[in-house]
Amino acid sequence: MRREARPFDLEALPTVAEARRRFLAALPAWRPPEEPVPLLEAAGRVLSRDVAAGDDVPAFPRSMVDGFAVRSQDARAAMSRGLRVVGRVAMGSAPKATVGPLQAVWIPTGGPLPPGADAIVPVEATEAVGDWVRLREPVRPGDNVLSRGADVRAGQVVLPAGHRLRAADVGALASVGCTRPWVYRRPEVAILSMGDELVPPDRIPAEGQVRDANAYSLAAAVRADGGIPHVLGIVPDDKNRLENALRDALQWDMVLMSGGSSVGLDDVAAEVIAKLGPPGVVVHGVRLAPGKPTVLAVVGDRAVCGLPGNPVSSLVAYDLFVRPALYWRMGWPGGRPPATVRARLAEPLAAPKGREFHARVRLVAGPEGLVAQPVAGGSGQLATMARADGLVTVPLERSSLPAGETVEVRLLV
Amino acid sequence: MRREARPFDLEALPTVAEARRRFLAALPAWRPPEEPVPLLEAAGRVLSRDVAAGDDVPAFPRSMVDGFAVRSQDARAAMSRGLRVVGRVAMGSAPKATVGPLQAVWIPTGGPLPPGADAIVPVEATEAVGDWVRLREPVRPGDNVLSRGADVRAGQVVLPAGHRLRAADVGALASVGCTRPWVYRRPEVAILSMGDELVPPDRIPAEGQVRDANAYSLAAAVRADGGIPHVLGIVPDDKNRLENALRDALQWDMVLMSGGSSVGLDDVAAEVIAKLGPPGVVVHGVRLAPGKPTVLAVVGDRAVCGLPGNPVSSLVAYDLFVRPALYWRMGWPGGRPPATVRARLAEPLAAPKGREFHARVRLVAGPEGLVAQPVAGGSGQLATMARADGLVTVPLERSSLPAGETVEVRLLV
Repeated sequence: MRREARPFDLEALPTVAEARRRFLAALPAWRPPEEPVPLLEAAGRVLSRDVAAGDDVPAFPRSMVDGFAVRSQDARAAMSRGLRVVGRVAMGSAPKATVGPLQAVWIPTGGPLPPGADAIVPVEATEAVGDWVRLREPVRPGDNVLSRGADVRAGQVVLPAGHRLRAADVGALASVGCTRPWVYRRPEVAILSMGDELVPPDRIPAEGQVRDANAYSLAAAVRADGGIPHVLGIVPDDKNRLENALRDALQWDMVLMSGGSSVGLDDVAAEVIAKLGPPGVVVHGVRLAPGKPTVLAVVGDRAVCGLPGNPVSSLVAYDLFVRPALYWRMGWPGGRPPATVRARLAEPLAAPKGREFHARVRLVAGPEGLVAQPVAGGSGQLATMARADGLVTVPLERSSLPAGETVEVRLLV
Repeated sequence: MRREARPFDLEALPTVAEARRRFLAALPAWRPPEEPVPLLEAAGRVLSRDVAAGDDVPAFPRSMVDGFAVRSQDARAAMSRGLRVVGRVAMGSAPKATVGPLQAVWIPTGGPLPPGADAIVPVEATEAVGDWVRLREPVRPGDNVLSRGADVRAGQVVLPAGHRLRAADVGALASVGCTRPWVYRRPEVAILSMGDELVPPDRIPAEGQVRDANAYSLAAAVRADGGIPHVLGIVPDDKNRLENALRDALQWDMVLMSGGSSVGLDDVAAEVIAKLGPPGVVVHGVRLAPGKPTVLAVVGDRAVCGLPGNPVSSLVAYDLFVRPALYWRMGWPGGRPPATVRARLAEPLAAPKGREFHARVRLVAGPEGLVAQPVAGGSGQLATMARADGLVTVPLERSSLPAGETVEVRLLV
């Protein structure tokens, strides 16, 4: 009537670190296709080409302060009897005034250094006496002058290919006139959910049915990480239909499926994913809680991830394995560290035997800083994740963490 | 020929914390307009209404493991002679098999508990003998059963108004059938740049001119934080034109301008912003480096921020003052802590006298963890920001940090 189920032998499974290493090592070198984007849409994208400055920035020596442009050799005289103010530098055009011996010219922050001057004295360090100005401090050549090319030299690479653009970088691109940077295309990620019990979220489940939540939380995670999610819907518990759906999904850059990895008699996901092509399944089961039945595969140049059906497990597996693969596919293999905060554990955390535990915690402000309060509940309970602020790792080699221990909490995104 | 410049008296200026407190205290209570969004676009948005479950989740008792549904009172017999396997639970429909005395039914993870059974034994804790199964461990009522409503009870608020939706939350919405959540509208933020020297980034600057970078880095920051930026362009150094531009910009939810706060003879930004209406300017100058000439104002229910023209300063001021105001405007006044990593300072950091210093650092992997390497350069040098990974704060009361100190690095976004 039934075939023997094959429970995972924990000892034979890779650790989280080893599973990730194997998975990422199996991904081929990958250079995504590129496209130019308008500057206002460039943030978060990964540069596909080095961006070099066409000209020096600034293109002329500029004042770094509001003050007076002076000749530094006049410093001594300037401090005793003062300098005659003979004009002011206007912003946005070549300076008209010239600074002669014992003269000074008013210059605003960012203004071009007028001919003759070699230093700027900040207004705070001066004293006005009619049309004269006396310096309170000595001045040396170059003081408060941002020299030509001091920010960026012509030809210099401002930002290299492979760099993910942050707000400041977008400004740096603007400053060198790069208004349509070339970036890698965003990876398009197919998302499938498997299970006879699943109905779309807009349906009222009949008895024995539940709404598909995983596709939507995974899609949100993919989008937050810079990918374009395609929710392809629900596949019933049927190997042929799953195989067809997965082959169809391989038209996208990456494939995520949830469910089917532990649906009972067989591991349908692993079995079907293994058929898709080489190099195939590289991880099948991880010493992880929640998330043990995770399947990680590479098919040609596509990452294919079989995530657990339990909603919390699928997000933990996403966090640990899918995100790095998505970063690889978007041309940003280095990725970035997760956002963390430090907090003290309110209660001890014990890992399920032989597995690295990623516990949901809620952060509360305590008198001595943040406190991480474990959120009780199984991996089937998505509401526990909604109540949590982040995840705390109990390492395999420790098996539990005592109350009061300071932990790094990875914030949920 | 010129009016006396008014340098800031540092001692009279508020600290960063005090400036932020004053600014946020001046913002009125604010409930943004709301709109429904499709679930796939809901991530990152802030709920404007509580979301309650319409029904229990799960709507029926479910198995948390692959295993056998049993009657816990049969435990002793089940461990000695075993139970007869009389059927299997199918996913997605009401269970057909019933568990009678000394019987067991195969049940997959997530399957509905069949009538008669009150506990599930994981397959790992069993031994199959033909059509019989023997348990290796005792079993108690409720073991491995997720009872009806254990995730969420009907009527229970799953996610409250004011909560910003993360990936897991989007899944939680799906699981309760909320496919078009009501969220606050994204704030629309006007961005102006002031300065006779500025040209748009697609122009080649003539002598004395520079490309406008601030508008683009600020727009990228606004977008990353959940707002919708509107880059309104460049205003010349003319009070009337600035006033007109700012009044026009007040049609948006929030106004950012950069430059004009320290353009020389007067503080044009502060003077003009003060004319826009009550309550007006609440902060004019902060004991901050870079970012001293920051102007923070409230006009009616709009936050108006006059940011320094120096590109690094404007981003630091954005980070400290604008972001919290944007969060307020988007109905998420609590906001979230910045992403940080801990690193050891490679070199000492000294703050400019009397100011809280936000130093750019580059992170490099060292043998004992991350090392924060200060990036040299003035606040006019945007390329220094592009080379940096984050910011380290030198508190006012410390004035310098020694090499080797462990610091929190706020990652640039």
